[in-house]
Amino acid sequence: MQTVDQIISPSWIFDGISNDLLENNSIVIKGNKIIDIVPTNQLQDLYQADAVFNLDNHLLTPGLINAHTHASMSLLKGYADDCSLNDWLNQFIWPAEKKYVDESFVRDGTRLAIAEMIKSGITSFNDMYFYPEVTAEVCVEHGMRGNLGLVTLDFATNYAHDPDDYLTKGLHFRDQFRGKSLITTSLAPHAPYSVSDKTFEKINTYAIELDLRIHTHLHETRHEIAESEEKYGASPIQRLDKLGILGPAVTAAHCVHLSSLDLEILNKNNVTVVYNPTSNLKLGSGIADLKSMMDKKLCIAVGTDGSASNNRLDILNELLIGLLVNKGVNMESEFLNAKVLFQMATLNGAKALGIEDKVGTIEKNKLADMTTYDLSNVYCQPSYDPLSSLIYSGGRSLVSHVWIDGKLKLKEGELQSFDESSLLTKAKAWQDKIKTIQTS
Amino acid sequence: MQTVDQIISPSWIFDGISNDLLENNSIVIKGNKIIDIVPTNQLQDLYQADAVFNLDNHLLTPGLINAHTHASMSLLKGYADDCSLNDWLNQFIWPAEKKYVDESFVRDGTRLAIAEMIKSGITSFNDMYFYPEVTAEVCVEHGMRGNLGLVTLDFATNYAHDPDDYLTKGLHFRDQFRGKSLITTSLAPHAPYSVSDKTFEKINTYAIELDLRIHTHLHETRHEIAESEEKYGASPIQRLDKLGILGPAVTAAHCVHLSSLDLEILNKNNVTVVYNPTSNLKLGSGIADLKSMMDKKLCIAVGTDGSASNNRLDILNELLIGLLVNKGVNMESEFLNAKVLFQMATLNGAKALGIEDKVGTIEKNKLADMTTYDLSNVYCQPSYDPLSSLIYSGGRSLVSHVWIDGKLKLKEGELQSFDESSLLTKAKAWQDKIKTIQTS
Repeated sequence: MQTVDQIISPSWIFDGISNDLLENNSIVIKGNKIIDIVPTNQLQDLYQADAVFNLDNHLLTPGLINAHTHASMSLLKGYADDCSLNDWLNQFIWPAEKKYVDESFVRDGTRLAIAEMIKSGITSFNDMYFYPEVTAEVCVEHGMRGNLGLVTLDFATNYAHDPDDYLTKGLHFRDQFRGKSLITTSLAPHAPYSVSDKTFEKINTYAIELDLRIHTHLHETRHEIAESEEKYGASPIQRLDKLGILGPAVTAAHCVHLSSLDLEILNKNNVTVVYNPTSNLKLGSGIADLKSMMDKKLCIAVGTDGSASNNRLDILNELLIGLLVNKGVNMESEFLNAKVLFQMATLNGAKALGIEDKVGTIEKNKLADMTTYDLSNVYCQPSYDPLSSLIYSGGRSLVSHVWIDGKLKLKEGELQSFDESSLLTKAKAWQDKIKTIQTS
Repeated sequence: MQTVDQIISPSWIFDGISNDLLENNSIVIKGNKIIDIVPTNQLQDLYQADAVFNLDNHLLTPGLINAHTHASMSLLKGYADDCSLNDWLNQFIWPAEKKYVDESFVRDGTRLAIAEMIKSGITSFNDMYFYPEVTAEVCVEHGMRGNLGLVTLDFATNYAHDPDDYLTKGLHFRDQFRGKSLITTSLAPHAPYSVSDKTFEKINTYAIELDLRIHTHLHETRHEIAESEEKYGASPIQRLDKLGILGPAVTAAHCVHLSSLDLEILNKNNVTVVYNPTSNLKLGSGIADLKSMMDKKLCIAVGTDGSASNNRLDILNELLIGLLVNKGVNMESEFLNAKVLFQMATLNGAKALGIEDKVGTIEKNKLADMTTYDLSNVYCQPSYDPLSSLIYSGGRSLVSHVWIDGKLKLKEGELQSFDESSLLTKAKAWQDKIKTIQTS
């Protein structure tokens, strides 16, 4: 009989690797690790713990991974709905960022985003934004796992004035947080249209030297591709391929529009794609062809994008949209199911962040990043398949418990390390400030 | 100073007719009617009531109207996810219906559906299913407003053996419930592929004689259209037009695939279309072209369809899907907004059910069918537009209060006339029974 820290006994476990759900098994946690998974009826002979969670009618999955977002933009949530992409950028987002983005914006925005993500069952996120050291501080403060981008652009912003300045600041941030187990970093050249060849090459050198992944936006809009073809005589993917940037360490967000050559290049280089269905739909960017990408066996993860282009940091909703839209576009109801999508949002997400050795599945010796969902409600009953019920019928209001690095961050729907009313007060203060741009 | 029954003071009101939200106004209710809408700061001089709802940070809208569903199919929710349309029908839905559908199935299924709909802010639904008298009894029992179809098919089911039998039973049901204020009826020929010309003509005669609307499925799949073209030399819409069935009293669910001639016919006849985005996507039927329908100024309402093809009876989710998919397909982020969609789900819904003189807007002398939403949470804050926040960021978990016919049916998220645990027990019992088909 071994004494451990926590025992969790849900009705079903989706471990991310087995073909079927595990029924009536328990997860045994010591420190921040899963040390065993045993049939619940054998538990009493093997383990005892102070904290025991008997979660009848609950499903447990690996924590959801948000593989592409801009967390602190949560302060711009709903700030520019339903306008043209041009107005969205030029009249709203860029002026607001220019006027307001600083360390305090990033701190308050990231807090709000992390609170929303935890309530939505998300345990890790892949971020790209200014002042990543502030984002990292907030992650550590609230026990959230983040892979934070060393964002780089060719033009000046409030955060940095040129590519070298971005990189210097980013690398300094990386050094500051090395050894913090919740924080990892990627190089984050913003996008092919905002980063020159020279900067890309410099970033690639760092990627190789420091063994870092590269997180970038790629082929989000038709406009971006047309512009690249005019300027470089090649699509952005073809251009980055020629520059030698693409490879298995690259995580490319969006990939909405791909020629067969582009697809071939992504496949050849084992690039991980992040599917962001809501953002692509809402901004009118288009509908990514998941089917072709899956036919090419690309590793596909799932992201929400930032709150300015998707007013929910809610991976379960991305899975629902992904299921529905792909069935509809392909006119094929049997294409895709909850399990396939769930793997994209867990193990593939971990790969997109470069942390698949630590999280993304429920296995012995992995870190305890896990989410449970309460299926006992009129939305989900009857339930002929718990995973399918969760996505099709349930959604994030079912999220009951969230553990990150073995620590309980959400308990029966209640955040454990946030004062929600202070988050709302701050959000309101920012809203009142930011609103003045619209009216001034 | 007048004494009334209820006063509701939300922060914002979407009344369904004004261009802007009303801020800081109160709704005054006497009996089942809205008798006044006044600025909240003038309230104390005019009205007093025992029941006063001060709903700070809440939005109030007309109750949502589910313009096409099959309520009792909620017992088949998630029963046949992700299979081909052919298997869905022939291997799952029809065998289950043949084996299990009876008065008790309809009673338990409708109860579950009404509970889910009220929790989702829905105050009226347009139903088409067997044993409508049982559906009506459950509506009256729980205070739900229903427009129930006198379903008619050319083939036998557990409910009736031929078209005349369906119609006799339907008209008998209609007589039983005349004068019940919550219940209205439509004739409900199932679909052009399951109803002959002769039966359609008989139904049309009843529609004219009894002044009833006609609720039918129309142009849901490409297969249905191809089959009609082969059999009748005309699309279903063209065939029904020639038969003289189409007109302003017709509510046509789906209309996913429309030629320009079909569109012209719907327009000429002022047919009301019910848009069911999730069901059409999930079953791989396709994506209805909302833009063309709106260009033709068709009256478009919104439906969930039944739980076997959309595992949520959740109109807010249909609005989200509708916004996103149409922006994506048209690659036009400025197409559609929350207000346009909300009008489809309220006033247009009331038109689809033929009850627009009684409900669908917040106006003096209309019946008090209303829903409120609590926006004070991390999902919705900051909020630059309450209606947009509700759809894009919130969803049904925000629904706080629901009134139907002046009666409070949901209070702070809690159902007022249901025992939820007994609903779940019954759902589980049906699940165990129905599951055996899959394994037998």
